[in-house]
Amino acid sequence: MSAEVPPPGALVVFPVHGIGEVASGDDLGQLIADALGRSHLELADGDVVVVTQKVVSKAEGRVVALDPQDKAAKVALVESEAVRVLRRRGDMLITETRHGFVCATAGIDVSNLAAGQAALLPVDADRSARSIRASLHHRLGRSVGIVISDTFGRAWRRGVTDVAIGVAGVAGVVDLRGTPDATGRELQATEVCVADEIAGAAELVMGKDRNVPVAIVRGVPEHWLRPASVAEEIVRPPAEDLFR
Amino acid sequence: MSAEVPPPGALVVFPVHGIGEVASGDDLGQLIADALGRSHLELADGDVVVVTQKVVSKAEGRVVALDPQDKAAKVALVESEAVRVLRRRGDMLITETRHGFVCATAGIDVSNLAAGQAALLPVDADRSARSIRASLHHRLGRSVGIVISDTFGRAWRRGVTDVAIGVAGVAGVVDLRGTPDATGRELQATEVCVADEIAGAAELVMGKDRNVPVAIVRGVPEHWLRPASVAEEIVRPPAEDLFR
Repeated sequence: MSAEVPPPGALVVFPVHGIGEVASGDDLGQLIADALGRSHLELADGDVVVVTQKVVSKAEGRVVALDPQDKAAKVALVESEAVRVLRRRGDMLITETRHGFVCATAGIDVSNLAAGQAALLPVDADRSARSIRASLHHRLGRSVGIVISDTFGRAWRRGVTDVAIGVAGVAGVVDLRGTPDATGRELQATEVCVADEIAGAAELVMGKDRNVPVAIVRGVPEHWLRPASVAEEIVRPPAEDLFR
Repeated sequence: MSAEVPPPGALVVFPVHGIGEVASGDDLGQLIADALGRSHLELADGDVVVVTQKVVSKAEGRVVALDPQDKAAKVALVESEAVRVLRRRGDMLITETRHGFVCATAGIDVSNLAAGQAALLPVDADRSARSIRASLHHRLGRSVGIVISDTFGRAWRRGVTDVAIGVAGVAGVVDLRGTPDATGRELQATEVCVADEIAGAAELVMGKDRNVPVAIVRGVPEHWLRPASVAEEIVRPPAEDLFR
């Protein structure tokens, strides 16, 4: 495979190695541009760059001290980041964050951090995405889409998947309503959350255990590349949600 | 891009065109093998072949008559395929199917079918996947993974995504618990539903409006290729589900 040119219509998803440790104040666009250069990879117009939440939180200084033995402190931290606790089972809290995300422990986690630290979600991951997009455009002259991804559980199905918590320059949801299906009849209601599918595809080449916080998705349809927002397109308002 | 060889570690996702109309009794492995041949594409050992539910249901004769104007008949059909209705809003029923899937209208839909027809979910999509896997092995001598995908909505997030309703030869959930993270500490609990991420990645090259019911995902890690089952790995039993 690795020596073969992909067939027409292919999507190519590949990891960006060598980002290294990320610290508060780092310019992620710069780190990504440098890592691509060292890997002899070039960004192309229309690529989608998927960046995991953890490095965005680190770059934005959203890391706090947390004693791993102090369960009360952990619960207090989760409650301070959540607007609501939906379910509670033992230590595990399913929360709604102030962004409207429903996820475990308000999206706070401690993996891939120094002992005694915890990472909070970015304050506004759509803004984080726009900022990385602008930085990459400035440095490399390429116009790309950005997806900030995080790992969430789901109702009804086991296992976690990566989803989009912020986007810039690439659609959250693509509305196919009114598009004729292959029989020529109108499709009834098909709004596809392509940003979540892109985040999940990127996860397949990152892997939790491989310390690869960035992947490139090449070959998405051009008409998906547009101004976009997870907050406006993907977060389902409680009033239209049957499960809150 | 299309003229470039993918970088190391890349996943390549590409559509299989030319499957054509599928009828009850068709051997999907044969149809896929023929379409690949006409497209001058070769299957490789370790590829994952993603097949949408609609063509599996058609091949297995799971298509029934349904007058699109007869709302009572539609509700009766949904109720006959569901074991439980979780939520009801107007015409829209969120149901639990006998497989344990939570989805709208028991997974029944009418797109890409002749007028007056509706497709039911396969009786056992893990079995469907095993059967396609065996047929492709028999015809092409290749050992591949199979994911049967369908399009489901989710709680809390707008837009639908493709997920796995059946698998063969490729993992449903990959358990990374106990794998050291990049800092060398043990990851707490990270069971990743790679089958859903593979289904979503395939959807990105299929598109509801393009009549491409099959895609190939090339480059998944070898250790994901093993006997597997959506029913056993992904369907969350009600007893451990906080949202049923």
